Amino acid sequence: MARFIAKLKSEIGESPYELRYRGRQTSEPVLMRVIDYNKNSLKEATLKEFVEINGYKNTETVTWLNVDGLNDSDLVKQIGEVFKLDRMILSDVMNVSSRAKVQEYEECLYASVKMIQLNEDTKEINIENLSLVILNRLLISFQERKGDVFEPVRERIRKQKPKIISSKTDYLAFALLDVVIDNYIYILSVLGEQIENLEDELIEDPSRDMLERISDLKREISFMRRNIGPAREMILAMGKIDSEFIDDDNTSVHWRELQDNITLAIETVDGYRDMLTDMMNIYHTTVSTKLNDVMKFLTVFSVVFIPITFIAGIYGTNFEYIPELRYENGYFVMWGVILLVAGGMITYFKMKKWF
Amino acid sequence: MARFIAKLKSEIGESPYELRYRGRQTSEPVLMRVIDYNKNSLKEATLKEFVEINGYKNTETVTWLNVDGLNDSDLVKQIGEVFKLDRMILSDVMNVSSRAKVQEYEECLYASVKMIQLNEDTKEINIENLSLVILNRLLISFQERKGDVFEPVRERIRKQKPKIISSKTDYLAFALLDVVIDNYIYILSVLGEQIENLEDELIEDPSRDMLERISDLKREISFMRRNIGPAREMILAMGKIDSEFIDDDNTSVHWRELQDNITLAIETVDGYRDMLTDMMNIYHTTVSTKLNDVMKFLTVFSVVFIPITFIAGIYGTNFEYIPELRYENGYFVMWGVILLVAGGMITYFKMKKWF
Amino acid sequence: MARFIAKLKSEIGESPYELRYRGRQTSEPVLMRVIDYNKNSLKEATLKEFVEINGYKNTETVTWLNVDGLNDSDLVKQIGEVFKLDRMILSDVMNVSSRAKVQEYEECLYASVKMIQLNEDTKEINIENLSLVILNRLLISFQERKGDVFEPVRERIRKQKPKIISSKTDYLAFALLDVVIDNYIYILSVLGEQIENLEDELIEDPSRDMLERISDLKREISFMRRNIGPAREMILAMGKIDSEFIDDDNTSVHWRELQDNITLAIETVDGYRDMLTDMMNIYHTTVSTKLNDVMKFLTVFSVVFIPITFIAGIYGTNFEYIPELRYENGYFVMWGVILLVAGGMITYFKMKKWF
Amino acid sequence: MARFIAKLKSEIGESPYELRYRGRQTSEPVLMRVIDYNKNSLKEATLKEFVEINGYKNTETVTWLNVDGLNDSDLVKQIGEVFKLDRMILSDVMNVSSRAKVQEYEECLYASVKMIQLNEDTKEINIENLSLVILNRLLISFQERKGDVFEPVRERIRKQKPKIISSKTDYLAFALLDVVIDNYIYILSVLGEQIENLEDELIEDPSRDMLERISDLKREISFMRRNIGPAREMILAMGKIDSEFIDDDNTSVHWRELQDNITLAIETVDGYRDMLTDMMNIYHTTVSTKLNDVMKFLTVFSVVFIPITFIAGIYGTNFEYIPELRYENGYFVMWGVILLVAGGMITYFKMKKWF
Amino acid sequence: MARFIAKLKSEIGESPYELRYRGRQTSEPVLMRVIDYNKNSLKEATLKEFVEINGYKNTETVTWLNVDGLNDSDLVKQIGEVFKLDRMILSDVMNVSSRAKVQEYEECLYASVKMIQLNEDTKEINIENLSLVILNRLLISFQERKGDVFEPVRERIRKQKPKIISSKTDYLAFALLDVVIDNYIYILSVLGEQIENLEDELIEDPSRDMLERISDLKREISFMRRNIGPAREMILAMGKIDSEFIDDDNTSVHWRELQDNITLAIETVDGYRDMLTDMMNIYHTTVSTKLNDVMKFLTVFSVVFIPITFIAGIYGTNFEYIPELRYENGYFVMWGVILLVAGGMITYFKMKKWF
Repeated sequence: MARFIAKLKSEIGESPYELRYRGRQTSEPVLMRVIDYNKNSLKEATLKEFVEINGYKNTETVTWLNVDGLNDSDLVKQIGEVFKLDRMILSDVMNVSSRAKVQEYEECLYASVKMIQLNEDTKEINIENLSLVILNRLLISFQERKGDVFEPVRERIRKQKPKIISSKTDYLAFALLDVVIDNYIYILSVLGEQIENLEDELIEDPSRDMLERISDLKREISFMRRNIGPAREMILAMGKIDSEFIDDDNTSVHWRELQDNITLAIETVDGYRDMLTDMMNIYHTTVSTKLNDVMKFLTVFSVVFIPITFIAGIYGTNFEYIPELRYENGYFVMWGVILLVAGGMITYFKMKKWF
Repeated sequence: MARFIAKLKSEIGESPYELRYRGRQTSEPVLMRVIDYNKNSLKEATLKEFVEINGYKNTETVTWLNVDGLNDSDLVKQIGEVFKLDRMILSDVMNVSSRAKVQEYEECLYASVKMIQLNEDTKEINIENLSLVILNRLLISFQERKGDVFEPVRERIRKQKPKIISSKTDYLAFALLDVVIDNYIYILSVLGEQIENLEDELIEDPSRDMLERISDLKREISFMRRNIGPAREMILAMGKIDSEFIDDDNTSVHWRELQDNITLAIETVDGYRDMLTDMMNIYHTTVSTKLNDVMKFLTVFSVVFIPITFIAGIYGTNFEYIPELRYENGYFVMWGVILLVAGGMITYFKMKKWF
Repeated sequence: MARFIAKLKSEIGESPYELRYRGRQTSEPVLMRVIDYNKNSLKEATLKEFVEINGYKNTETVTWLNVDGLNDSDLVKQIGEVFKLDRMILSDVMNVSSRAKVQEYEECLYASVKMIQLNEDTKEINIENLSLVILNRLLISFQERKGDVFEPVRERIRKQKPKIISSKTDYLAFALLDVVIDNYIYILSVLGEQIENLEDELIEDPSRDMLERISDLKREISFMRRNIGPAREMILAMGKIDSEFIDDDNTSVHWRELQDNITLAIETVDGYRDMLTDMMNIYHTTVSTKLNDVMKFLTVFSVVFIPITFIAGIYGTNFEYIPELRYENGYFVMWGVILLVAGGMITYFKMKKWF
Repeated sequence: MARFIAKLKSEIGESPYELRYRGRQTSEPVLMRVIDYNKNSLKEATLKEFVEINGYKNTETVTWLNVDGLNDSDLVKQIGEVFKLDRMILSDVMNVSSRAKVQEYEECLYASVKMIQLNEDTKEINIENLSLVILNRLLISFQERKGDVFEPVRERIRKQKPKIISSKTDYLAFALLDVVIDNYIYILSVLGEQIENLEDELIEDPSRDMLERISDLKREISFMRRNIGPAREMILAMGKIDSEFIDDDNTSVHWRELQDNITLAIETVDGYRDMLTDMMNIYHTTVSTKLNDVMKFLTVFSVVFIPITFIAGIYGTNFEYIPELRYENGYFVMWGVILLVAGGMITYFKMKKWF
Repeated sequence: MARFIAKLKSEIGESPYELRYRGRQTSEPVLMRVIDYNKNSLKEATLKEFVEINGYKNTETVTWLNVDGLNDSDLVKQIGEVFKLDRMILSDVMNVSSRAKVQEYEECLYASVKMIQLNEDTKEINIENLSLVILNRLLISFQERKGDVFEPVRERIRKQKPKIISSKTDYLAFALLDVVIDNYIYILSVLGEQIENLEDELIEDPSRDMLERISDLKREISFMRRNIGPAREMILAMGKIDSEFIDDDNTSVHWRELQDNITLAIETVDGYRDMLTDMMNIYHTTVSTKLNDVMKFLTVFSVVFIPITFIAGIYGTNFEYIPELRYENGYFVMWGVILLVAGGMITYFKMKKWF
């Protein structure tokens, strides 16, 4: 965190045209993959040099260039120059801490959103910024790291699914965003399962670490909320945009579909948040009820002994003349009285349902 | 849940044109019922083969095709082909976890909403997705399972009620949605009765399982809220739509009626939610007040014994010279003092209303 | 409640054109009163047969027909036929559980709102549905029961107040709604007085039944809120409507007036709700502070006795050689020590302000 | 309150044209002050008879008529007649319990707002209704009582400040409303100072009366909120109005200024409300922490004595053969054990930081 | 505070055209710095006399005049006269307690916002009002004190960064506001780090001063919220303004960028606020759980001694005939019973997990 703050400080007042990658630095080389397809052809390749992209510049096919890694700002600049992108777009691509947004430019449409992935092994949630630059026959996607959620889309292209291979970049953009949001929903459902399991456990046995687990889940749910909210705004804006790069007749149904999905996601998040708040309350109630039961039991227990201890105390006094002491069976009579008193009290308390 | 998550995962990135039923699988055959009616004729039949539908293709009557069961995706595809429906519609019909919505297409109007039914025997609330495809002279309704809430509408058609038999598919769609919402309201009133009964019990005797029951009702109310909210948006959108399949002059009054009903339902839900929150607070207060009363009583009880036990302790000491011990009636005087002290304390505490 | 639910169930899916009175059934005959007035004439009568209404069909005067009782659906049908009202209007008139609303029809303007009255004797709040059908020279008002809040309006007509007798049905409708809302405000002020009285009592002596009274008032305030909210929407819609039955020049000031009044009512309700919530908190705080004071006092009291009881216990041991026991004034010295310890502790606790 | 309710009841259904002063009745005569000014002249007078106003009817100067006192409805009627005001305006002037509002009429602009003043001596907050009737060259302001906040505006006129004497009634109205809102902000700052002082005290010593003081401040803040809210709506409406009596070029900047000020006031109020809520929580926490510390101390204290009292009890038994009793230094050994046990426990508790 | 209130009071009703500096008074002379630049030239100077500004009046370059200090109202008046600024602008410049806003004038665009700086040494947050007056080729910025956050912008000009030196005053204004908002975000990240550190500490050891620190952070977060909110409104208004001083083609992307940034800032603030509220709850829970554990332990401890003390009490009675006392090993048997009872109870309590 401290390093992150120092970085933030050093960037105050920097020109918005500065290309500086604000994310985690790696020395891995940037990976550039190209899929070039239309109804009749399919080419897939990994570029070694960026200049190879020129081989895909034709207006018959749709070309999807996927750039994994943002640590090479020269490359980004080069891409900008080749495709004549506004400097602000490049700067936005590098600025991975920005809010999800969509922005129209003369030469293209720029969209960014957070890509959230669940690492199935560690159960960790990874987040990285995804930028899409939508041109006429070309879509460039920028990610921070290798490893993405787009394999299903690549499969659909490879399998020559009719819709995707007969559409343009707008449909490809939709397909990519659709996967991103599907992942949101999938992660939410995983969190949801944890929440429901916890809820079952909670009623059975509210151990102390439960509070911490509720608290952790709450934080993860907040994290999701914070990212899904702006994503939804972006999708809504996307659906309303009137741009040459979006063919309304062809994709408006899909944007509405996405909007419904992400709205559902937000409602789900809010539902989980309420559940967690309720669980916290139930936890507190259960714990305090348990404590109260213990305290009540112990108090009742003590109270039963108080008068009988007093009785014993009375006959421990050293007065010269205490008639009861001299009775033959005085001691046993005392025991009788003690048992009577104790029994009476217990009966009374039981009757009152005090323990 | 785990299976549901696995399924979700497997569907990430799937094409939106994929027809896959995401609900509970059954091996029951799909049931297709047709009611074909106008002012002069009424035909009702169960189709064995889908091709029989061709017998109802005329422009004089309104045909309502009700499909119960979504496990046969081939059938759905066939329906789509026969009536020339957009592939997205078919995909939406199959996607039973979607939000309530209405979508205009060139060839039809598509609407979906959750159908909620109360099983009168088990008191369980069942939910399934209902899709309506509204064409010019044909309305197709898709449900997940056999058993629906539409019997009253069928009855109205059979009894040749003038309004319904002289209207088109838009009025039929309204009538179906009206029943769906009537069921929401009915279920709410059943929940409401349970809440009010619980409230009465609560004041009389706040036993522990009450908390669980309040909590259960809260969950059911949240469940209703989550489904009625999108339904309301859908109804509002329906009222605003400007489509050839909706005859405004004829049905706008009805859509307003539906809007009022569902708004009322939402206000009712919110009212119940507030009541349940209040009840939870009252429960806590009552429980803690009861506990406090017990603890106060027990404490006062103990406190009365403390000084008199001390007095007895004093005369249990073995000093060689304790004058009181030698008084003839020392023992009885001690008893007198003890009773005085105890009586004084009890009087004082009673006066202070401490028990 | 159970009967109400059964009724609800039986009506699921009923045609919206069905005329069925959903309120409390009575066998009382329906009361029809007519006031017919203009600048020059004033006729007031109770109709025995509905046909008598024909005597008031002229375009020179304003006719106000007030129907008390909805149990005679034939009569309602007859009224509908005579004045050529849409069947939906009649259905709405009968459906007394609907939300306040205003609806334009070609032949008339339909408005409904809840009429809330305070029974001055029993202090009970009665609610019934009021429907207004506004035609050109005729206003029909439907109520569920005899007894309304309109006497002041009738008086104004009888006393020939210039504004009312020179205006049309729109002003009459305004006057009626104005009384309804004045009653809301009056009932709120009565509840407000109870709340303020309770608040004064609360600070003085928070007895247990106070919680129940706060809770009851809260429910009544919620009840008012639930009815005033839709009424406000209705009044706002009324002010915006562009209908031939509302003369804008003449009444727009009045609708604004009504809007201000009902907005004030809502703000008042919300203010009271906050006050009640605050009072609940103050109640809890006061009660728990009182309890804590008692417990602290009792604990301090006990604690003072603990060491001195221990001292007495020491000298109750039977060791063969305990020097203090043999001192001549050992017993008195012990008393001295005991008093010193007790006094010291009391001083310390007082100093610490622990009791 | 009771009288106020009775009055409310008596007014239900009264015609909106009725002129009845609903505020506090006084027998003081109404005070009418006139300031008549323009760039070249300045006349200031107190009218004895209303007819004297005719001396100020010219179109060269701006005339400000300030009426203090509303108990003379005849006078108000007379004013209405002389300046040809709509009867509704007069009725609104008299109805001092109305919400802040602005209403356009053909002949004038009517605005009302609550004027809140702090009595510097008693620290009481006084509220009265202020109505402004803005005509072409005349502004009439109505107040309920003598004593207002407008002296600074009068001073500015007397001192011939260029802007005010060269503007029309719209600027005068702005100046008056500006003072009213300046007073809101001033009173808020006084309340704010009290809140901040209380906050400092709270951390030092949370005595019991603090709760009451927080509660009182909360009520005053709510009172301010309830009045500033509608005032803001009024100012916003004023800024949007398109009336011949408001010269947009000249005053739009000022209305925006007022809007900013009153928005700031509302944000301040909301900030104070949050602070008070936080303070209430801090009070509760501090009080309960203090109590808990006391109880913990006392409990630990008691617990230390429990085992040593038991030890003494053991040696108070009268068994014939108890070896320890016969040891020469048995008694001192017992003391040693007792001190050891007590010391050990104290050390343990200290170590655990239990007191 | 008291002095501030007195000042507020003295200013009630003052003309909005009054130029009075309402901030902290200093006797430091006002500092006037000029940067005059375009693609070809760069001049930077500190003005001794204001008249020197005339040397920069040309239409080829952009001139940025930065005025540090507002205590010299004559200077402000002079600036107003030279650049023909509306008196309201000057008044707004002086009124440093106003809300962030943007206001269009014929001759210029006026914007104000709070400039918040973190003093890196004292960790104090300083706030001052920043006013920007945007003219055609001139931007005047007014600050209350020396020391600002604009050094990075000056650096960019000095380094002849292409975008800034080839743009007009609108881009300069954007650059300045961008730095201001970057500082908001930086300060938020510093607060965020403190919050996260506190959260870690909280779980480890909830000492008492933590409550105060949470409370302090909450206040600082509220402070930021109160300033960022209006700033966001201002930025949004800025983006929508249609003024000759803002070149839409050139800067609209930047305003959108700023809007995204400040929206992100607000979401961050709200996230922190929720975190602090959660932390407060966790603090309370942890503290009360700890207390409860202590009390439970102590109570269990006491309860174990109660029956065994009673047993000892029994054999301390002085009955003439108590058989057990005469048994040879009676005393040891008693010890055995005591240990058995105590051991049994401890086992039972352990089993029940009561301590």
